[in-house]
Formats: sequence, C-alpha cells, structure tokens
Amino acid sequence: MAKRALPLSRVYRLLEPGPVVLVTTARRGKPNLMAMSWHTMMEFEPPLVGCVISNRNYSFDTLKATRECVIAIPTVEIARKVVGCGNTSGRSVEKFSKFGLTPLPASRVKAPLVDECYANLECRIADTRMVAKYGLFVLEVAAAWIDPARKDPRTIHHRGMGQFMIAGRTVRLPSKAK
Amino acid sequence: MAKRALPLSRVYRLLEPGPVVLVTTARRGKPNLMAMSWHTMMEFEPPLVGCVISNRNYSFDTLKATRECVIAIPTVEIARKVVGCGNTSGRSVEKFSKFGLTPLPASRVKAPLVDECYANLECRIADTRMVAKYGLFVLEVAAAWIDPARKDPRTIHHRGMGQFMIAGRTVRLPSKAK
Repeated sequence: MAKRALPLSRVYRLLEPGPVVLVTTARRGKPNLMAMSWHTMMEFEPPLVGCVISNRNYSFDTLKATRECVIAIPTVEIARKVVGCGNTSGRSVEKFSKFGLTPLPASRVKAPLVDECYANLECRIADTRMVAKYGLFVLEVAAAWIDPARKDPRTIHHRGMGQFMIAGRTVRLPSKAK
Repeated sequence: MAKRALPLSRVYRLLEPGPVVLVTTARRGKPNLMAMSWHTMMEFEPPLVGCVISNRNYSFDTLKATRECVIAIPTVEIARKVVGCGNTSGRSVEKFSKFGLTPLPASRVKAPLVDECYANLECRIADTRMVAKYGLFVLEVAAAWIDPARKDPRTIHHRGMGQFMIAGRTVRLPSKAK
C-alpha cells in the first residue's frame, strides 16, 4: 500500500470513531500483534492515546519492556485476519505469517507497521502510572502513516459476543469541535 | 421511551464501538450536559469507563464536585441536538430546554438520564489520580438502562472537522473475545 505521513495533529480523527486496532510489538527481532478495542485519545498534539492492555496478553510484557508499539488500523477487507489475531496468542502462534499479514519497518520504533492496514501510528510509552492497577498505558504517537487513496475507510467496531459494526456512511454536521 | 435494566456485564458492548456520548451532570438541581468522544472501557465488571474531560468544559467542575454523572448514548435521529450540545456551553445555555432534550430521574445518582437516548449509564467517580494531568476520570457504572426495542442502534462516531461516521451494518465473525 502507498503510505503518506499524516500530520500528528490529525491522529485523533483516526481513533475517535472507536475502531478495533492491531497493536504490534517486537522483541529480539520477533514481531507480534494483538487486536484491541479499549483505547481513547487523551491529547491532540502531541497525540496521546490511552490503551488498556491486560497483563494476560502476551504483548503486555513486551510493551512494558520495550516501551514502544505500533497501533495499526484495519478495515473490513481484513476483518477475518483481525479476528484471527484476537483469537490466538503470540505465545504459541507466529501471527504475522499465520494470518498473512506483512510487517514493515517503522521509522521511529522497532515494532513493525502492518502493510495491510490503512493507517499506522508509531508509539512510545509516555506514562505507566495506571498500568499496575488498570493496564492503562499512555502512549505518545511519534509518527503516523496513512494510505492517501482510502477516503472512506470501513473500519471495524467491536460490539461483543462475535458481533462487529462496520463503519457506515460519513455525514457532515455543523460541529465547532476540532 | 421504554427502559429496561441492562446487566452491568454487558455495558462494554455499548461503549466499545466508540460512539459519541452525552455526559449529564447536576448541581443544585440544575442539570447540564456535554458531548464527548474520548472514552474507553477499562474493566468489564463492575464496568469501569475512562473519560477525558477538559477543565475548560463547564461540566468539569460539577463532575469533580458531585463525583457522579450519566453517560447517555444517542443515535443519528438526534444527531443535530448532540452537535448543538457540543457547540454550546452550560455556562450560558440551558441545554436540555434549548435542544429539546428531556431529563429523567436516575436511580442511583442525581445527574439525569436523557430520555431521547437509547441507553443511559449511571456513573460514580472511582479514581481521580489522572484528572490533574490528563483530565482522565475513571468512572464506575452503577446502573445501566437500555431501550429494549432498539436492536441495531445507529450510533454517531466523531471523525473530526464536522464529519461523523454513522454506524453501519453489524456482522458476525467467529471471535472468541467476550
């Protein structure tokens, strides 16, 4: 896919609608990824993102140790791969190869981008105060990439119990918000 | 609207897809509400919700002082009212009357439910450690209400700069997640 640098001031526009995302990490050259829905923007610029990741996830220890990850945003075309990543653990499965996803080198972190995703956010841990109690990592986005050809990405939104809402049409309303 | 109590273990299914929500508060009998998109689930049960609310919002002081609020989830039918709430401040506008929204008594908190919303979550503050630095309130949902007639609610998802994604169709995928 083509990748264009996205100004950091626009990262909030990708995460506010609440898509399921993939979080990649890498340790000793071995990449891994997990599916995640528990995230929120916390600041516009530099963009801060709060992510809740349970210590039962294989990625938890790697994220804590390496202090960096990539948040990759998938669309409905690869929904089954995303669900596959959510159903398996990096403890026993090499997920990139099993699900036919392609790790690409990032610019600022060792965790890989996901080539099949329409946007990728390179992140470093900014605050771990709430990790022990809630698994809440505060991440700062250091670089952001987007496929300029995808104007209306059909993101995936978790509704629980095997149900996913697929992003519908976009409408314009006279909002004064950013 | 009809209201049925929703088991607290199912609250995550309402918030994970990332809808724009309304947050109501009440102080000295005067109700107010604001629009918000920066939220994430933090625990299934009891449900914990992380909400980022800037201290520039009129609701910030009321929430901090009363330690309770209601998260109400609107759908596209009232999208213009929701945007109106986001474009104005409770400092100068009585939003419930201005936008034709109806406050209803809640069961566990003094903040009102919003009759026109398809779901309402009564919340109390559980943790304020991250409020000073990030405006992040950790809320515990004490009671939840849903309109049992609304099977496929068309929630609103903020994409920034006046654009909103409207929830599309729901698909079933073989996820092992909750």
